[in-house]
Amino acid sequence: MSDEESIKTRLKLRPVAIDTYRENVAYLHRECSVYRAEGFQALAKIRVGCNGKQIEAVLNVVDDVCIVAPDELGLSEQAFQRFGEPAGQLVNVAQAEPPLSMDGVRRKIGGERLDYGDYQAITSDIAKGRYSKMEMAAFLVATGQNGLDRDEVLSLTRAMLETGVRLSWNEPLVADKHCIGGIPGNRTSLLIVPIVAAHGMLIPKTSSRAITSPAGTADTMEVLARTDLAPESLDRLVRMERGCLAWGGTTRLAPVDDMLISVERPLGIDSQGQMVASILSKKLAAGATHLLLDIPVGPTAKVRQMRDAMSLRKLFEYVGDRVGLHLEAVITDGAQPVGRGIGPVLEVRDVMQVLENDPEAPVDLREKSLRLAGRILEFDPDVRGGFGYSIARDILESGRALAKMHRIIDAQGRQERRLEPGRLVFEVRAERAGVVVGIDNFFLAQTARLAGAPMSRGAGVDLLNKLGDTVEEGQPLYRVYAEFPANFEFAREFTRTRSGYNIGDAAFLTKTHMEF
Amino acid sequence: MSDEESIKTRLKLRPVAIDTYRENVAYLHRECSVYRAEGFQALAKIRVGCNGKQIEAVLNVVDDVCIVAPDELGLSEQAFQRFGEPAGQLVNVAQAEPPLSMDGVRRKIGGERLDYGDYQAITSDIAKGRYSKMEMAAFLVATGQNGLDRDEVLSLTRAMLETGVRLSWNEPLVADKHCIGGIPGNRTSLLIVPIVAAHGMLIPKTSSRAITSPAGTADTMEVLARTDLAPESLDRLVRMERGCLAWGGTTRLAPVDDMLISVERPLGIDSQGQMVASILSKKLAAGATHLLLDIPVGPTAKVRQMRDAMSLRKLFEYVGDRVGLHLEAVITDGAQPVGRGIGPVLEVRDVMQVLENDPEAPVDLREKSLRLAGRILEFDPDVRGGFGYSIARDILESGRALAKMHRIIDAQGRQERRLEPGRLVFEVRAERAGVVVGIDNFFLAQTARLAGAPMSRGAGVDLLNKLGDTVEEGQPLYRVYAEFPANFEFAREFTRTRSGYNIGDAAFLTKTHMEF
Repeated sequence: MSDEESIKTRLKLRPVAIDTYRENVAYLHRECSVYRAEGFQALAKIRVGCNGKQIEAVLNVVDDVCIVAPDELGLSEQAFQRFGEPAGQLVNVAQAEPPLSMDGVRRKIGGERLDYGDYQAITSDIAKGRYSKMEMAAFLVATGQNGLDRDEVLSLTRAMLETGVRLSWNEPLVADKHCIGGIPGNRTSLLIVPIVAAHGMLIPKTSSRAITSPAGTADTMEVLARTDLAPESLDRLVRMERGCLAWGGTTRLAPVDDMLISVERPLGIDSQGQMVASILSKKLAAGATHLLLDIPVGPTAKVRQMRDAMSLRKLFEYVGDRVGLHLEAVITDGAQPVGRGIGPVLEVRDVMQVLENDPEAPVDLREKSLRLAGRILEFDPDVRGGFGYSIARDILESGRALAKMHRIIDAQGRQERRLEPGRLVFEVRAERAGVVVGIDNFFLAQTARLAGAPMSRGAGVDLLNKLGDTVEEGQPLYRVYAEFPANFEFAREFTRTRSGYNIGDAAFLTKTHMEF
Repeated sequence: MSDEESIKTRLKLRPVAIDTYRENVAYLHRECSVYRAEGFQALAKIRVGCNGKQIEAVLNVVDDVCIVAPDELGLSEQAFQRFGEPAGQLVNVAQAEPPLSMDGVRRKIGGERLDYGDYQAITSDIAKGRYSKMEMAAFLVATGQNGLDRDEVLSLTRAMLETGVRLSWNEPLVADKHCIGGIPGNRTSLLIVPIVAAHGMLIPKTSSRAITSPAGTADTMEVLARTDLAPESLDRLVRMERGCLAWGGTTRLAPVDDMLISVERPLGIDSQGQMVASILSKKLAAGATHLLLDIPVGPTAKVRQMRDAMSLRKLFEYVGDRVGLHLEAVITDGAQPVGRGIGPVLEVRDVMQVLENDPEAPVDLREKSLRLAGRILEFDPDVRGGFGYSIARDILESGRALAKMHRIIDAQGRQERRLEPGRLVFEVRAERAGVVVGIDNFFLAQTARLAGAPMSRGAGVDLLNKLGDTVEEGQPLYRVYAEFPANFEFAREFTRTRSGYNIGDAAFLTKTHMEF
């Protein structure tokens, strides 16, 4: 290659003030010699390099010199930051080869088992941003459903763990809890963390945002405090307060998980093997030594049958044991939403009522949180088996849990703006008189999502009746809150012909056995 | 919703001179009231509407008023065109809901069979641009491999057929041919079409571009003539010349197929059921009544075993019979590339040599084309069984095929620039003396792709020896042509340790039975 040729392919780097979130985008002018010569196609992936650094980006072709000139290579905001070279720097541009590890994905599509090396290569390429959204979708679908056997789940867990920072707390007991989800309003973490931390046990909880639910723990906590903490501040905070309620994403713990979730979420897919790998790698990365898992079972929960809950528990135990995590899984009642509020602001109201020992506080949220917190407290060798619950209750009733919560909120950065439920409200009423014998978790979650949750913090559903309640015809069953007219209309339309409540005879009230 | 609120959400439409190819992109300024209020996330899909029209687009957030101002909504070039409203038009913006038919895709991922209604909903949403690349990838992977049973393939074929324009030629016999691919240099269509058209039989051939090969028929034909013809010009041309060699994409025949291919291509996935649906829907949309299918079999072909070729033939026949297509499938020798050249310009050279009755013309390309053309001519009720081959040979040897080819080229729009093989050349030599007993189709295709084919028209591989040839140590086996230094280096590096040729004893020369 002559010098002349190699110079011809050099372009001046320029930041383009377009935010393309996680996707790196490069902008080339249509008259740019490199674009013409290489015959790139718009949306092709190109490799931009200089000084030994390189970044891959999706190509957008520009016809406006105000954005990029023919001798320039533009990078979207985040890509420019990631690349870390100054504007005007000369860069080389070439067609990017698809990541080599896609070969493993194709073999998985073909029905093969992949080994640890394959998963390592895939997660490492994903972490380096070499996978397009399309390629991540292919990986997720190929490993979805029953695509992974338990040793593959173990390999994927280990591989995901390796891609991020791994925190170490240098303490023998680092507790964590996790719920596999599916139950709206199930905000026990916001109660368990202050209770356990007030006891003095370390519980540095990191959470994802909602995937398919109307609110994740991080979404709800953000109503009260910042959750995107840098690793250093997280470390300082946890050592001081013994607990936190942070978002796992920006702390660089198992970043691949967040990237996959950003594809899973819009696709609305969810797989058992991926879920186990995602949860356990995240918990291990956060430095947990002891984990309590909440697996709710119910007719409209994520897990519908006791036998499925058991097989999921076994899978968690199989992988947990092999990655050195003390793991206990409890199967809980997932027959209806927990508490009253569904959606960030409404859930925060429930949580604060429990912490404040308000007589109006939802009993089920309080009881479930105390039982789970009690189980975690029993990880402490000094707590006698069976005594965890009463210790947890003492911490809550004495106000120590509330005080701890306020300390955590302040340490993370209290939200200055007090958010209120959305001001657009309507009620859904009982079509007939009788006893509430069924509540559809999925329907209510969907209503809350259509109303705007979790993005719209004040949106959601507030339940006025729960299972077993006797209602009159026309009595309000729940209220829906929205912040924006479009969301309000979506939710109203959705609930026009159905309420998600089944009203009948008390004899039909089903009981789920809770294992505690 | 008050009038004031509805006005607040209106933005002025503005074209943004960025080419994002098939993906609609919308640009909102970060300070835009709608963006702030709705809490959109970058890369979320939004719905832009006015005057009853609407379009969905991926959101990019802009921090530069030169691109869009806070009261504007920018659309990328193609999206602006598709939307078809003037700049300055007031538009509404809302969060887009994921397409409803994704529910079917999720059920498919879960292992369910889908019915015709499901496939119809999916292809219709894809045709309307409601699927993101991610969602298309999920669909492709979920239906990939053995994901489709034969009735599902039939449903998908019918559903894809419905999404585009369907041509009707008002003639009882409209012939077409198709090769399932995998054999480099297999450019028989460029010979069959002029032969069959010169006979007077209608053969309006539309082709895709290369998916994973170094050249598709359309890529190669583009060296000679334009292939992107509007439906009206295509119609006029075919009625005049009795044949064409056009690209199927822009003629709006089964557009979903092209959209899926644009995802399949970078992912490098390929599935039997999708292939059958893709080919048959395309052929039916092009108005074919009679189809000859070429299924090459060989150790490094797409189909490696005769039993697989037979099961593929049965699947084609099953679906073909039910959609009213007279279909004959021939299983051909796919042991090595056909002809000498691999890559658009080199393949054109081979084709023109055959048409010009050049004594240097590759015999295998000539023979295969004559045999296939002969089989198509026998679709004509006036041609006696077994006489097709000699009619085809007469047409070729008399120069009528060449004359017809030139008429087709002129009618489609002759390329003014005569393209030459790339000027960067290297040779790959035999490591030992012996007989060529194996040629790896995949390896040579990959070499041609690395050299830049098909995007770089003059790039490719020129075979100097074929199966059965005796070679000396150090004798050149093939030449690699590239147009750009980076491609040249990629291809040279790739062939440094392997040649893709197996040189041994003539006794090991395997024979594949050709069924004709």
